[in-house]
Amino acid sequence: MKSVLSYIRKNRNAFRETWFDALRIPSISALSEHKGDMKRMADWLATYMVEELEIDACLVPTKGNPLVFGQTPHIPGAPTALVYGHYDVQPPDPLDQWITPPFEPAIRDDNVYARGADDDKGQLLCHMFSLKAWKAAGKNLPINIKYIYEGEEEIGSGSFVNFLKSQENRDMLAADVVVVSDNTMAGPNAPAICYGLRGLMGFELTLTGPSRDLHSGIYGGSVCNPAIALSKILAEIVDENGIIQVPGFYDSVLEISDFEHKATAQLPFNEADDLAAIGLSKPFGDPNFTVLERRGARPSFDINGLTSGYQGTGGKTIIPASASAKFTFRLVPNQDPKILIPAVRKFIRRLVPAGLKMKLTASEGAPGMVIPLESRFIKAGANALKKAFGKRPVFVRDGGSIPVVAALNQSLGADVLLMGLGLLDDAIHSPNEKFPLNCFYRGMEASAQLWNELGQLD
Amino acid sequence: MKSVLSYIRKNRNAFRETWFDALRIPSISALSEHKGDMKRMADWLATYMVEELEIDACLVPTKGNPLVFGQTPHIPGAPTALVYGHYDVQPPDPLDQWITPPFEPAIRDDNVYARGADDDKGQLLCHMFSLKAWKAAGKNLPINIKYIYEGEEEIGSGSFVNFLKSQENRDMLAADVVVVSDNTMAGPNAPAICYGLRGLMGFELTLTGPSRDLHSGIYGGSVCNPAIALSKILAEIVDENGIIQVPGFYDSVLEISDFEHKATAQLPFNEADDLAAIGLSKPFGDPNFTVLERRGARPSFDINGLTSGYQGTGGKTIIPASASAKFTFRLVPNQDPKILIPAVRKFIRRLVPAGLKMKLTASEGAPGMVIPLESRFIKAGANALKKAFGKRPVFVRDGGSIPVVAALNQSLGADVLLMGLGLLDDAIHSPNEKFPLNCFYRGMEASAQLWNELGQLD
Repeated sequence: MKSVLSYIRKNRNAFRETWFDALRIPSISALSEHKGDMKRMADWLATYMVEELEIDACLVPTKGNPLVFGQTPHIPGAPTALVYGHYDVQPPDPLDQWITPPFEPAIRDDNVYARGADDDKGQLLCHMFSLKAWKAAGKNLPINIKYIYEGEEEIGSGSFVNFLKSQENRDMLAADVVVVSDNTMAGPNAPAICYGLRGLMGFELTLTGPSRDLHSGIYGGSVCNPAIALSKILAEIVDENGIIQVPGFYDSVLEISDFEHKATAQLPFNEADDLAAIGLSKPFGDPNFTVLERRGARPSFDINGLTSGYQGTGGKTIIPASASAKFTFRLVPNQDPKILIPAVRKFIRRLVPAGLKMKLTASEGAPGMVIPLESRFIKAGANALKKAFGKRPVFVRDGGSIPVVAALNQSLGADVLLMGLGLLDDAIHSPNEKFPLNCFYRGMEASAQLWNELGQLD
Repeated sequence: MKSVLSYIRKNRNAFRETWFDALRIPSISALSEHKGDMKRMADWLATYMVEELEIDACLVPTKGNPLVFGQTPHIPGAPTALVYGHYDVQPPDPLDQWITPPFEPAIRDDNVYARGADDDKGQLLCHMFSLKAWKAAGKNLPINIKYIYEGEEEIGSGSFVNFLKSQENRDMLAADVVVVSDNTMAGPNAPAICYGLRGLMGFELTLTGPSRDLHSGIYGGSVCNPAIALSKILAEIVDENGIIQVPGFYDSVLEISDFEHKATAQLPFNEADDLAAIGLSKPFGDPNFTVLERRGARPSFDINGLTSGYQGTGGKTIIPASASAKFTFRLVPNQDPKILIPAVRKFIRRLVPAGLKMKLTASEGAPGMVIPLESRFIKAGANALKKAFGKRPVFVRDGGSIPVVAALNQSLGADVLLMGLGLLDDAIHSPNEKFPLNCFYRGMEASAQLWNELGQLD
C-alpha cells in the first residue's frame, strides 16, 4: 500500500483542487432554478470516473435528477463494494450568515468551508480519489467497485428509492457490501463505524370539531374541544418514561445483546456534559437502558409540532375548530412500519371522541437497520480506519434514520459499512458548513486501505 | 305612559338621526390615532345629557379615555337605576368587507348598518332617548337615574375597573339596580333577561426543555419532550366529559335550583338544530346537566390555542425546545378566581416533569354573577319588556363573561338587570355590524317603560 498512500500524500493539493471544483457547482436539489447545476454536477462526476478513474460510467435518467453510476472492470470471484453517496446539497440560506460565499470554497484553520464540503461531496470524493491513487500507483485493484450517486438525498431520495424497486436495477447494483460515508466520526481523529440506524414513521393528526372557532363563553362545556381531545390522545401514546403504549409496539424489537450492552457502556460518554450541551440537567427515558442505548437501539416517540387555535400575544376566548400534531416514531430492527403504522392508527382512532373528525396521515415509513458486529466487512472497515487514523474505531448505533441506507441494506441484501468521515460540528445544513482537511486527507487513505482490506477477505 | 310612548313613536326619525350623529364618530378605543374621537364622543354624550335631558353631567378623567357620568335631580326615597354602557367601538377592519362605510350609517332592510350600531351606541342611547321622551311628554320621573358610560370596554375596561376600586367613586355610582343593555335578545322580537354570567380565568402555560430544537433521531428517547409533557398536563385537567379535575374546583359552585332547572328546560331550544348550526352532530359535556345548563350555569375548561415546534407543511424531525398552551376556565357563582388561580397553578406544577421549566401566567380573573330570579328589579324589567315587545321575556344565564358587569354587581352590591336589545346576528365586532330599527324603536319604549315600572316598586 506504500505507493498508493504515497501518491495520496504527494497529491493532496491536486485532490483538494479537484474537490473545490465540485464544491463550486451549486447543486441544490430543493431549488428548481438549479436544475441545470444538478445535471452539471452529475456530468462532472461521470466525467471524472471515465477520464480519471478510467472506468465505465453513465448517467441514469430519472423523473428527477439523474443517478451517476460507475463500475470498475469486473473481476470474477472478487468481492464487490458499492459506494453510495449523494451529489446534491442543502440550500445555503441564510446567506448573510456565511463568512465566505457558500459556493466559493475557502480554507480557514485547516477547514474547508463550503456548502457540501462535508455533506456529501467531501466524503464521496474520498472514495473516488482513493481509486485514482490505486490507478496512479499502478496497483491492481483486488475487488470490484461500483459507484451509485444520487441527486435527491436532501429532498427525500424519491427517484433513487423508486429505482431500487426494479429487480433489474437492483441486479445492476448487486454487491457484497455497501460503503457509505455520509455521517460523522466519534470526534476529531476518533474514527467510528456506525453499525445501526433507527427507522422512522412520521404522522400528522388533525382533529376537527365545530365548523368554526366558537366563543368559549357561549359554548364552553357543551362542545368537545379538539385541542383537549388532541392532548388526551397524545398523552396516551407514551408513559412518563417515554415507553410507547401502542399494543404490540415492542413485539418484534431486536433486543440489545450482552456484547452490545458492554460495548456501548465502554464508549466515551459523559452524560452530564452531554445534557449540559443541550441546556438540560435531568436525564429522561426508559430506566432499563443507558442514554446511548435509548438513543441508538430503542424505539422512541416525539411530538414534533402542535398547532391549534389562537397563537398570538394575549388571549382569545375560543374553542378552536381544529387541532393538529406532527409526531414521529423512531424504530429499531426488526420493527416493521407496515405493521406498526396500522397499529398506531388503530390505537389513535379508538381514542378519538365521538363527534370529532380525525385525519391521520402517515409517511411510508423506513425500517431500522443493524449490521452484525461480526460482519467481515465491518472488520475490514475497522482495519482500514485504524490504519488511516492510527486508532481503532468505536462501534456505534446512530439514533437517526437514513432511509435510503436501510433500503439498500434490505433490497440488495448486502451489509452496509457506514464509515462517516465528517465531524459533529461540521454544520451540515447550516451556514458555514465545513470539512476538516485532516478528515479529507485521512478519509482518502482510509478508503484506499478499505479496497485493500476488502481484497484480503477469505 | 301613553304620552311618553306617543312622543317616542312620533319622534322616531329624529331619534334615529341623533343616533346616526353618534355613529359617525369613529370612537375606536384600540387605535391611538382615534384618541381625539374618544374625547369627541364623550363630549357628545355629556352635551346631550346637559342640553337635551337637562341633567347634570360631567366627564371623569382617567389614565385612558374619560368616563361620562350623568344623573337626574335626586328624589329622596325613590329607587335609583344606574345605566352602564360603553361609547367605544371595535376597529372596523377588514374595511373592504363593509357594504357601506362603517362610520356612515346606512339603512338597508330596516336595519341600520354601522360600527357600533348595536355594540353599544344603539343600545345605550335607547336609555337616554327614553328619558328625553319622559321629559318632552312633561311626565315626572318617579326614580333617580344615573348614567355611567366608559370608553374602554373593547380593550378591557381598565380605567373603569380602576375607578371602581375607590369607595368614593362607588358612592357616586350607588344604585339599587344596574341597568345594562350590551347583549342580545333571545331572537327577533323575543325579549330576554340575562340573570347570570359566567366568570373567567385565563392562563398561558409554557414548558421549556432543551436550549434549542433537537434532532429527534439523535436524541429521541433520552430527552423529555416539552410538547408531550404539555399534552399530558392538559389531558389531566378535565375528564372525558369536561369535568375539571383540579381539586376543590367545584367546592363553592352555586348549584342550580329546582326552579331554575325547570325554567331552563322550558326555554325554546332545539339541541340538534343548535349543534347543526356549528357543524356538529354529537352533544358533549357533563351528563348531569342539560346543554343550556352546561353553557350558562356550570364551569368549563377550554384550550384556546396550542403552539409547539414545526407547524409548516410536511414534517420536521425535531424535539421542540418548548411548547405552549393558552387556556381558559369559565366560572360560575360563587367560585373565586383568587382561590382557584393558585389551585390551578398548584395542580399544574405537580404535573411538570423534572427537568422542564414551567412558566404559567394567569389573568386577574373575573367572578361569575347571578341575580336571583325573584329580584323585584328583574320583575320590573320583565314587565317593561313585555309591554314594549308584547311578549314576556325569557330568563337566561349567559355562558360568556362581562367582567365589568360582574364587578358592578359586586362592588355596588346592586342587582344587575341585563336586558339586551340586540340580535345574535348583528355581527358585532365584524364587518357590517347592524342594529334592527325595530330593536331601536322597541328598545326606547322598553326603557321608558322600565323607568315607570321601577317607580312602581313597593
